[in-house]
Amino acid sequence: MKVLILGGDGYIGWPLSMYLSEKGHEVHIVDNFLKRYIEAQQGVECINSPSSLVKRIKTWNEVSGKKINFTVADISENPKLLYRILEDFQPDSIVHLAEQPSAPYSMLGRSQAINTQRNNVLGTLNLIYAIQAHCPEVHLVKLGTMGEYGQPNIDIEEGWIHIEHKGRSDTLLFPKSPGSFYHASKVHDSTNLEFACRTWGHRVTDLNQGVVYGTQTGQSKMHPNLAISFHYDEIFGTVINRFITEATLGHSLTVYGNGSQTRAYIYLEDVLRCVEIAIEKPADKYQFRVFNQFTEQLSINQLADKVALAGKSLDYRVTIDHIENPRVEKENHYFNAVSTHLPNLGLNPTFLTNDLILEMLKYLSDFKDFIDKSKFMPGVKWKNH
Amino acid sequence: MKVLILGGDGYIGWPLSMYLSEKGHEVHIVDNFLKRYIEAQQGVECINSPSSLVKRIKTWNEVSGKKINFTVADISENPKLLYRILEDFQPDSIVHLAEQPSAPYSMLGRSQAINTQRNNVLGTLNLIYAIQAHCPEVHLVKLGTMGEYGQPNIDIEEGWIHIEHKGRSDTLLFPKSPGSFYHASKVHDSTNLEFACRTWGHRVTDLNQGVVYGTQTGQSKMHPNLAISFHYDEIFGTVINRFITEATLGHSLTVYGNGSQTRAYIYLEDVLRCVEIAIEKPADKYQFRVFNQFTEQLSINQLADKVALAGKSLDYRVTIDHIENPRVEKENHYFNAVSTHLPNLGLNPTFLTNDLILEMLKYLSDFKDFIDKSKFMPGVKWKNH
Repeated sequence: MKVLILGGDGYIGWPLSMYLSEKGHEVHIVDNFLKRYIEAQQGVECINSPSSLVKRIKTWNEVSGKKINFTVADISENPKLLYRILEDFQPDSIVHLAEQPSAPYSMLGRSQAINTQRNNVLGTLNLIYAIQAHCPEVHLVKLGTMGEYGQPNIDIEEGWIHIEHKGRSDTLLFPKSPGSFYHASKVHDSTNLEFACRTWGHRVTDLNQGVVYGTQTGQSKMHPNLAISFHYDEIFGTVINRFITEATLGHSLTVYGNGSQTRAYIYLEDVLRCVEIAIEKPADKYQFRVFNQFTEQLSINQLADKVALAGKSLDYRVTIDHIENPRVEKENHYFNAVSTHLPNLGLNPTFLTNDLILEMLKYLSDFKDFIDKSKFMPGVKWKNH
Repeated sequence: MKVLILGGDGYIGWPLSMYLSEKGHEVHIVDNFLKRYIEAQQGVECINSPSSLVKRIKTWNEVSGKKINFTVADISENPKLLYRILEDFQPDSIVHLAEQPSAPYSMLGRSQAINTQRNNVLGTLNLIYAIQAHCPEVHLVKLGTMGEYGQPNIDIEEGWIHIEHKGRSDTLLFPKSPGSFYHASKVHDSTNLEFACRTWGHRVTDLNQGVVYGTQTGQSKMHPNLAISFHYDEIFGTVINRFITEATLGHSLTVYGNGSQTRAYIYLEDVLRCVEIAIEKPADKYQFRVFNQFTEQLSINQLADKVALAGKSLDYRVTIDHIENPRVEKENHYFNAVSTHLPNLGLNPTFLTNDLILEMLKYLSDFKDFIDKSKFMPGVKWKNH
């Protein structure tokens, strides 16, 4: 299958590109390096100095005997190039990961909020038009986030909800309550994509993903140049990755607020499998299909306890600190999200076991000297404007 | 009260500015003339050659003895100027009408869809930050549209809906199903604004307005230079205004599709009153308040019949033609929207009576020679991409 991966240089995009390439798919990567640019601007860096995209691809092609191609392109700023890529490559599937992925970045200030919504929303809108122009039958797999839903007091269904109201009923998009201007940008995308499905017959799968964690995949282990970018900073570091890094350094685990906040989580290798499942079973024409892409729900306190337990088994000094919550978010809330589509299609879930945490701690121990503990504490405050 | 009117040169903005000025409010207009620019690009023009904003304001200030001020500014492209306006003027209320208002324009092609979402969504996002920086207590009254909701098979509540689901319940934003990339832009705005209320304590009233009709207001009648821009073309002409123009010329009324489509309508002078009501009773801090701003629901066929009846009483030859629907939209659908907030706060509704249609026909008869009937038929087709 011909798979176009937009944002193929990222934390998910790069391992996904290798994974699908190894499975025999013809992979073409597009990236504009916005994330690397923001890293430089914000002074944050990956712990494991991932190679440039050129070197990654060169190494992969040598090591695997497969062939990934790529184009450097900004889909939000250069629609003509995007049109040409779709016209020339004629993909069967497009995996769209080309979005600014950080909630804290989007809350830094006006220009970062604007950058986020411009890159994400206008980039996706350009993509919708490029698909309509050159490959209207393509299956678009788009990365959304569980954070679009917020924390409603009812169960979170997979994108759509059947509502009974005043003696009538309809199945409508699940109401959203995003927690940042980044999360809002993903809500906007979903709105635009659902319209394109309903109006033009596009086929879209929106993957509302939980918080990802993980350091390596089967493919990344094949050569050091294939390392996956690993962030632990407040801008790009997700919570489990940050806790594991803190534990490695003997720094207390920094729990935001009282730690009762519950979120959905997924292991990086499961993400790759989920995308594979989605492209193997495409959405129908006119279908805006939503998968809630996670494998378990945990509170921040539960995460911290799990990491602390694993750390202690290695004789790490692990303590837990509750710090002032930099975000405006509910604590002590109800949270229960449905996720049945992906398991029904064959996802065999991985859980955050002690062994898995130990494996991640072991990986990080090699990079101990590169950790900058000043990056643990949140500087971006939701109220700071 | 100090009222900042963004988009004060438009079909609603201009009569609203005069109305609130006459009521003794201190009105400051901001506009970037995007609508006049699109008029020129698309080769469509108002029937009644409205004056430039400078001449309008000069005439108003002379005729009324009041004083409207203005600044030419693009709130989506020039946030610094927007910040300065808010800092200097320190408004009590901001009425935000500075959005590209045409669904067909947004469906012309990629660049028009991008222009619409960039101008509307990023402009509103800049405004949110400008408010946070310089007047976080201000009451923002934002023009939304009933078209955000689409045509669900349940009653449309005012912005929020109480949902009972699997034994639990919550009150959440009403699910949206916008009918164009323009309507989607307003959904995005609502998402961003609700986040700003929830997170920063902003106070916002979102006016989800029905289709507006009307030619004059009490203020516009005071001098020819104060005329309100009147469009009948497919880009900016709303359906009742187009039907009345067609009847004036003896052209058949162009009903899209089978005409069963039902929408909500409101008379231009009622719009002014609704905005006045909103600014007199501001939303609370942290409140994202939504009013469904319309006074009656009618099918397109009912509209056509009413206009035909009035036209015949003037011995106009009025026929009705069903033409191919250029839009992708439901026909024969359920539609019932709630609107109780505005009547409860004092709105005394105007209805589309025979007398009102006759008054509009009379106004238009003076401009009969300026009507270009080639602008009646829709050229923008939702499927044309």
